[in-house]
Amino acid sequence: MGAMSTAAIQMTGRLDPRSSWPAPGDNCPIARTFETVGTKSAFVILREAFYGATRYEEFATRTGLSEPAVAARLRELCDEGLLEKFPYQEPGQRARSAYRLTEKGGELLPLLVAMMRWGDRWLFPDGARVELTHTDCGSRVHAMLRCEQGHDVAPDELELSRPTRRR
Amino acid sequence: MGAMSTAAIQMTGRLDPRSSWPAPGDNCPIARTFETVGTKSAFVILREAFYGATRYEEFATRTGLSEPAVAARLRELCDEGLLEKFPYQEPGQRARSAYRLTEKGGELLPLLVAMMRWGDRWLFPDGARVELTHTDCGSRVHAMLRCEQGHDVAPDELELSRPTRRR
Repeated sequence: MGAMSTAAIQMTGRLDPRSSWPAPGDNCPIARTFETVGTKSAFVILREAFYGATRYEEFATRTGLSEPAVAARLRELCDEGLLEKFPYQEPGQRARSAYRLTEKGGELLPLLVAMMRWGDRWLFPDGARVELTHTDCGSRVHAMLRCEQGHDVAPDELELSRPTRRR
Repeated sequence: MGAMSTAAIQMTGRLDPRSSWPAPGDNCPIARTFETVGTKSAFVILREAFYGATRYEEFATRTGLSEPAVAARLRELCDEGLLEKFPYQEPGQRARSAYRLTEKGGELLPLLVAMMRWGDRWLFPDGARVELTHTDCGSRVHAMLRCEQGHDVAPDELELSRPTRRR
């Protein structure tokens, strides 16, 4: 099958040989995640939500998107269950809606950090514009591969298999 | 500034208060990463490269993309430096080009794993279609936040600051 990439993932069980396994098509979780959050403007809105923005005006100011684009993205992100509305009222003003991350949206954090770190390293030769550090120890934070036993996992230690269905 | 999301990242130094910090605009590494790899077809081509595909026909068969789309994406991914060509020859056939991940492309692995795991968890209620495990211990692999001191980092232990420029 030609030269293997150094990063190639090992396929085992019913995925080995790979040609015996039907291509995932629409059932690929990577493709479906992309369909769910796959616009640059959705990513920058989510970025601002992680940075603590909650009000429509904050999202508009901080993302540099047009107001109709912000309104459309906030609505889509709520429809997808990544953001949720909550009531918000400043003294003497009428109640309005603000937006916060749901659990589903909040779990996109490793994905955003992976994009941020990769972009910093490969697309900004002069270095990162912001530092993302660990509050406790002050050292830099990355998105890494870890297994449930707590081991760091190198790319060549990854194994892909088809799970046995219980039903 | 309204209710904080539970996942909000702490802003410190010259980023605090956040309103004093100009929005990153085109200098956001998340936005720029999206511009570099921001199509679903690019992601599924990269997925297959991580799974060991090297030849044009493999990418076409495994992704289900049209042949012109595969050719265009392979060319773009080479132009961006995420894939590179290498010569490939089967006995009795003419030499052709195959494709493999560069270091730059290979470092997208945490991003793809983060997309895969999030998609599995939130978009496939019947469970993951493939298992990604650690070869050494057999337990499941996730994309997690880790600091350079080796600590696992919870979302509320993230701190964002502006680095001091050395030049």
